[in-house]
Amino acid sequence: MSTNIYVVIMAGGSGTRFWPYSRDAKPKQFLDVIGTGRSLLQMTFDRFNEIATTDKIWVVSNEKYEDLIQEQLPELEKHQILLETEKRNTAPCIAYASYKIMKQDPNAVIVVSPSDHAIFKEKEFREVIHTSVEAANNDEKLITIGIRPNRPETGYGYIQYLSDPGVSVKKVKTFTEKPKTDLAAKFLESGDFLWNSGIFVWSIDSIIKAFEKYEDEMAALFASGLNDYYTDAERSFIKKTYSQCKNISIDYAIMEKAENVYVVPGDFGWSDLGSWNTLHEIKERDSDENVIEGSVMTYDSTNNYIKGKKGKVTVVQGCEGMLIADFDDVLLVCKKEDSSVFRDFITDVKAEKGDKYI
Amino acid sequence: MSTNIYVVIMAGGSGTRFWPYSRDAKPKQFLDVIGTGRSLLQMTFDRFNEIATTDKIWVVSNEKYEDLIQEQLPELEKHQILLETEKRNTAPCIAYASYKIMKQDPNAVIVVSPSDHAIFKEKEFREVIHTSVEAANNDEKLITIGIRPNRPETGYGYIQYLSDPGVSVKKVKTFTEKPKTDLAAKFLESGDFLWNSGIFVWSIDSIIKAFEKYEDEMAALFASGLNDYYTDAERSFIKKTYSQCKNISIDYAIMEKAENVYVVPGDFGWSDLGSWNTLHEIKERDSDENVIEGSVMTYDSTNNYIKGKKGKVTVVQGCEGMLIADFDDVLLVCKKEDSSVFRDFITDVKAEKGDKYI
Repeated sequence: MSTNIYVVIMAGGSGTRFWPYSRDAKPKQFLDVIGTGRSLLQMTFDRFNEIATTDKIWVVSNEKYEDLIQEQLPELEKHQILLETEKRNTAPCIAYASYKIMKQDPNAVIVVSPSDHAIFKEKEFREVIHTSVEAANNDEKLITIGIRPNRPETGYGYIQYLSDPGVSVKKVKTFTEKPKTDLAAKFLESGDFLWNSGIFVWSIDSIIKAFEKYEDEMAALFASGLNDYYTDAERSFIKKTYSQCKNISIDYAIMEKAENVYVVPGDFGWSDLGSWNTLHEIKERDSDENVIEGSVMTYDSTNNYIKGKKGKVTVVQGCEGMLIADFDDVLLVCKKEDSSVFRDFITDVKAEKGDKYI
Repeated sequence: MSTNIYVVIMAGGSGTRFWPYSRDAKPKQFLDVIGTGRSLLQMTFDRFNEIATTDKIWVVSNEKYEDLIQEQLPELEKHQILLETEKRNTAPCIAYASYKIMKQDPNAVIVVSPSDHAIFKEKEFREVIHTSVEAANNDEKLITIGIRPNRPETGYGYIQYLSDPGVSVKKVKTFTEKPKTDLAAKFLESGDFLWNSGIFVWSIDSIIKAFEKYEDEMAALFASGLNDYYTDAERSFIKKTYSQCKNISIDYAIMEKAENVYVVPGDFGWSDLGSWNTLHEIKERDSDENVIEGSVMTYDSTNNYIKGKKGKVTVVQGCEGMLIADFDDVLLVCKKEDSSVFRDFITDVKAEKGDKYI
């Protein structure tokens, strides 16, 4: 194991598409979504703890989740938990972590990862990460991990790479965010497109240079904190900086612009757990293709996700492709595949019934 | 108002098709199903209190509902509440009430009625009852109240009558219980078929004679209690008698066999409230034909019955023709029209999850 590997776990998402299971007070990454007894954040930490030592695994999230993170990952020192004061997408999150880590270890190689995905082949995953770390250590490469697509998914970003047989770190040709179905089908067919997993690997030097080149204002903002990181002044510095910082993803800010972007294709049983429907696909199903959680009885019902409430009997008849999710204060019955409607649900429920249901 | 009108309200049903709203501990007739603030039993009592004096309105039900009846109808004297010890269908229930009332008033005319139906035109209803009472007072007629059908309903009994224009009390030709759809459609088309409302009118003399003729064993059983009715011995007499008595409806036992059976057609906004679907038809619906109870938000959903739980938000999307009924310990999601599956639900839930959910 290289000793300079740092991991930055991004844990600031709101998990909207898993409402009402995922709530503003405890979003998806803090929940035991898979049913292993560990939250997705904890599983992500465990996975990376095979790659990096505990003192080099950092978590970035909103300050309102500070207690949850400390509770779920008591192994982390206070300075390893980076608290954002506003939602600003992935670029500021990565800039903050990069400049702070640079102050401690200018030779670091950083793996950036979402906190709420599932990976079922851990060994294969580690191999992909080690390949990427080695490449990032040797060259000024910005590396993203790509997933071989198995369906014309329209909700993901696609990465086209230059075919180069025998080389595992491939030069990226194009990025395409959320293509329409026909285009996604063409991508799938062509064979040289991968899904963007949102996992990145680069050296401190490479990513700082990229920020300076493509987001110089943001680079200047976070560079100005070098005296404050690891001190009592860090929190107020971040509050001020985030209020001035633009809201942009690392893909738009850097990956789609930089020349030195590479992709390592991976096949490690990945799922972004992006919706109830995705979860339905990876969970154990009964002979009628229903995922059943809790005390549930089904009749003439196929391909549903039924999450019953504890201490309650749920009887379902004549349902096909539905999500039925019963919680203390919210019952949701909807088409399992229509994950795009969740934003409406949340906006409307918040407006009409109040924040407490969100 | 004739002074010899007695009303026997049958309130021993289990309301299976309204589970999980209707429960074994408090079935449908004891619930405020319509939302008027009065239970169906109370509404039935109120309706008949315009026709008979309070002291002549009697309720027959299972002994386990004694407290509920006393609570909901405190106007009743103890002897007006007839408690059955076992479920034995309508013939024993009517025999019990008939022999007991005969002991008090051999000149009574009895109106027998279910406790869990809705009647929206009270004035028209009273007119039909008065016509029937008059006929029953004058002749030895067993009269049933018939409802003009408006759809080929397969869940009801049909009564064919001899056409006799200008006569309101019509001779019955045939009874047909629960016809198949094509036969029901023919009945509807022919114009001389009525639905059997389960409301009967007859004199004490006529019904006792009919029991003696068609159910002589049952007649003998209940006649043997004449010394016990209105005494402390009544309860143990009934316990013994019910254990020996056969389980049969008044339709099979007498109405389908007797020669002197008549029907009075009525048009008084009747509903048997036989299922959630029936209730959906009579309740106020939104512009998408949804009946909404509680704090519910719907998207792309039509023709549903959605009963949300108090203090909870229910979000429904992409549903058509469903019942979604959320209670403390049971959630039911099923096709609104498939009321025949309720028996399975209850049998299975009882077997697999326990009595407490029934």
